[in-house]
Amino acid sequence: MRDERSAVPVFFLSDSTGISAETMGNALLIQFPDLHFERRLIPFISTVEDARRVVEILDAAMDGPVTPLAFTTAAVDEIRNVLLNSRCPIIDFFGLHMDRVESILGVRGMHVAARLHGVGDIIRYNNRMAAIEFAIEHDDGQSLRALDKSDVILVAPSRCGKTPTTMYLALQHGVYVANYPLVDEDFESVDLPRPLRKLRERCFGILTTPERLSQVRTERRANSRYASLEQCRYELRRAEALFRMHRIPTIDSSASSVEEMSTVVLQRLKVRN
Amino acid sequence: MRDERSAVPVFFLSDSTGISAETMGNALLIQFPDLHFERRLIPFISTVEDARRVVEILDAAMDGPVTPLAFTTAAVDEIRNVLLNSRCPIIDFFGLHMDRVESILGVRGMHVAARLHGVGDIIRYNNRMAAIEFAIEHDDGQSLRALDKSDVILVAPSRCGKTPTTMYLALQHGVYVANYPLVDEDFESVDLPRPLRKLRERCFGILTTPERLSQVRTERRANSRYASLEQCRYELRRAEALFRMHRIPTIDSSASSVEEMSTVVLQRLKVRN
Repeated sequence: MRDERSAVPVFFLSDSTGISAETMGNALLIQFPDLHFERRLIPFISTVEDARRVVEILDAAMDGPVTPLAFTTAAVDEIRNVLLNSRCPIIDFFGLHMDRVESILGVRGMHVAARLHGVGDIIRYNNRMAAIEFAIEHDDGQSLRALDKSDVILVAPSRCGKTPTTMYLALQHGVYVANYPLVDEDFESVDLPRPLRKLRERCFGILTTPERLSQVRTERRANSRYASLEQCRYELRRAEALFRMHRIPTIDSSASSVEEMSTVVLQRLKVRN
Repeated sequence: MRDERSAVPVFFLSDSTGISAETMGNALLIQFPDLHFERRLIPFISTVEDARRVVEILDAAMDGPVTPLAFTTAAVDEIRNVLLNSRCPIIDFFGLHMDRVESILGVRGMHVAARLHGVGDIIRYNNRMAAIEFAIEHDDGQSLRALDKSDVILVAPSRCGKTPTTMYLALQHGVYVANYPLVDEDFESVDLPRPLRKLRERCFGILTTPERLSQVRTERRANSRYASLEQCRYELRRAEALFRMHRIPTIDSSASSVEEMSTVVLQRLKVRN
């Protein structure tokens, strides 16, 4: 019995973590907002035997009520070939594109499972580690030394959503991000807060909607002036005026994902450097 | 004059953040460890005019000494079609695969730029936010309440690399991760530290090499007993014995990336739930 609204089983297959398969697969699936998907990640498929067991799982899914779909980024030819023998439809992000990239570059690729090792990665790891520690230590903001050492300063009223973007930039890009929470006295002035004056170039303002801000603050401190819609509206209006006056670029955290906000910040950083 | 070792210009193009284009493009490029690439991300290509300007950049790169290469995930047909008109070779992760996915699913996709909004994303955002705050608050470990509320507990000697994996799991997957740093008295006992005894199922041990640990600790406290190779060797040997005895799964942070460690943790979580 086939129910049109049953979930479509989706498999992400990889000889590594499967993060690429998930990222690209989901970029395609997001185009089908009316369908429901049941996702399963199968990472670290590292031997032909592993691959055969995965094919059994895929073929079993083919006998279910809804045709499944699999995405693979397996780079090892023997493993990919076994997977592609499944009866399940497989979107292969590697094979086809690898041939093309090889012909453009004029070099044959290694066709090995991606392992992110080596000295380059230790350096990258240490950078990210240091940036994360910087973010954790200065999550409350305000320390002058932190502002001075930072690559980027996120400026916003309390609870506008600085922290996830801070962590994303640190973790994925090793960027040193400091926070500067705007407080009452900052709203009363038309000047930029003193600690930011010489660092205007590094500043990004974060805004949101009064409704969203009030909701987030209510979770912290219900029925407070701090969480009231009126106070949130006032702070956001003042913050926006301040950013406009001092030509600080702003991002709306209610309309952008963490990834989108981070991309905006990174693009400006690049232009400046 | 063409220098064989010149960097290959690589462009990542997107009508959204470009994270998918970068992820997949880099998954292919990592297979060419001997080549040097000069990467440039061009995100948020949202109009046909934007796309035409990008084509000018790509075509200009075609006149350089090394043939460039571009990866695109643009989902909007008009934009993708303009980009594909460039003379620059373009790997299109969307067009070809979208046709295939549509034919498998029997539904036409939206072909719109991916924006990660809507209620689903607010919920996801709030979950990640709460998990990040949990991670920041309990980064030093030890709080019993934190251990109890956690999904996962990373157990290791100091400076083995718990923090980046903690943040990655929080940020990308909304997982509540607590840390338990092993200290002198833990190494002297064959029992699991008391706070972990009832929570063994949630524990993951993290190990590394004595050399790496000593190096990381030296950055913190040079020439200390704490950073000495001998002490690091002792702590890692004791930690490993403890994990083995209590059947706690372990991950080697010197041989695995943050993404790989996170994937191992997530896979076990799924099996358990």
